[in-house]
Amino acid sequence: MNGHALSACLIYCLRHSANRGETQHCTASPRISSLFESESCTYTYLLADTETKEAVLIDPVLETIERDLKLVKELGLSLTVAVNTHCHADHITSTGLMKQRVAGLKSAISKFSGACADIHLKEGDKITFGRHCLTVRETPGHTDGCITLVTGDQSMAFTGDALLIRGCGRTDFQQGCPKKLYQSIHGKIFTLPNECLIYPAHDYLGQTASTVGEERKFNPRLTKGIEGFVEIMNNLNLPKPKKIDISVPANLVCGLHQV
Amino acid sequence: MNGHALSACLIYCLRHSANRGETQHCTASPRISSLFESESCTYTYLLADTETKEAVLIDPVLETIERDLKLVKELGLSLTVAVNTHCHADHITSTGLMKQRVAGLKSAISKFSGACADIHLKEGDKITFGRHCLTVRETPGHTDGCITLVTGDQSMAFTGDALLIRGCGRTDFQQGCPKKLYQSIHGKIFTLPNECLIYPAHDYLGQTASTVGEERKFNPRLTKGIEGFVEIMNNLNLPKPKKIDISVPANLVCGLHQV
Repeated sequence: MNGHALSACLIYCLRHSANRGETQHCTASPRISSLFESESCTYTYLLADTETKEAVLIDPVLETIERDLKLVKELGLSLTVAVNTHCHADHITSTGLMKQRVAGLKSAISKFSGACADIHLKEGDKITFGRHCLTVRETPGHTDGCITLVTGDQSMAFTGDALLIRGCGRTDFQQGCPKKLYQSIHGKIFTLPNECLIYPAHDYLGQTASTVGEERKFNPRLTKGIEGFVEIMNNLNLPKPKKIDISVPANLVCGLHQV
Repeated sequence: MNGHALSACLIYCLRHSANRGETQHCTASPRISSLFESESCTYTYLLADTETKEAVLIDPVLETIERDLKLVKELGLSLTVAVNTHCHADHITSTGLMKQRVAGLKSAISKFSGACADIHLKEGDKITFGRHCLTVRETPGHTDGCITLVTGDQSMAFTGDALLIRGCGRTDFQQGCPKKLYQSIHGKIFTLPNECLIYPAHDYLGQTASTVGEERKFNPRLTKGIEGFVEIMNNLNLPKPKKIDISVPANLVCGLHQV
């Protein structure tokens, strides 16, 4: 935390606003709230600029929309973007419903997700909110449209289902490909600084965050070579996700399947 | 997070070592890992000095001892103290079993808890680990032996069951007293800086942390006057905790009831 705090104090980055084509400075560390949905073990992250009050929500879940909107309201935040790290198979996103509740809110997801959204993201795009930004790194392998979102100072990475704490997303459905996932994690996440905090989309053991350095050293799957990794991933024999037949079609339309 | 990061960079505090009677500087923010136990919705916190590797564990749970010890080992930490914020009624502590697994580890709890431990804590005592420390603030009301642990720079407070996120501990068993709890929270926790992060022993809604400022402003119970608070607390009509008849006797002996 000290290293993180220090880098947050000192490091600035140039940002390129995806919306307006401006080049400007973006400060390092936004305020972060981690919010957990216990049925699907999903983490939703609320990131905010405490001065301008602009905020971004990552991977919000339909069942917890009231909790999330209550917090946004209490903190006096102006929610500008609700982004999904990929088209989820285990829960339904709240982005569509949230857009109906929050004036001006835009939804975002990878252009390779196949899902509808106001903003289709690709490698290098930036989501700016106040003095902060998130940069898109494409990290396919769990799905083709998986992205990792990295803060301007590279002190935090929101890895979705690509890299989990001491684990990773499965690769046996929805365009899953273990080779791609291995290359994504090693090429796009493990190249971040060791101190960079990892905030995954899920954790099933009550863990809340990790770091790049920890995962490089202790992730039992990713410390293997690519062949070893592929063998592990091809032999997990996991049951089909309970909600996949409902969740995926729903998430292709921002969770508004019933509208 | 920025204000926290900045204060972590800049602020130092004088510490008084409870063990050795020394007066020395202690730096502000240790590394923190929040760990969740889903059956009792308990948060365990691992705090560490990343340089000296000394570490303290707050409110560890019996069921998650293997996860917690694995993390301690991976990070190469030397666990010196395992402290309970009070004698829990909803889960069994792992401190006793952990002492059998970790050489030199000491258990700690309030002297008013009635529970056995190597260190009996009272108001103003400090638990030091490397360059960091936690100061004890007695915050009775949920039980007589409830304490809040505050980092040296007052950037984090571990409030146990005294103050929860938008809630508080119940006061209808184990010496519970709503008046005492109200006075504890207003006198010992709400007097901390608004930016101080609140890490409670439990959360039932997937929230992971709050701040003193947020709770002062939005806690629906604590924003009431003392009479209003007492009325709320005396009319919660909550069911008896499922595990109280097992947990409390077990926790009086550090979870070693079966030994």
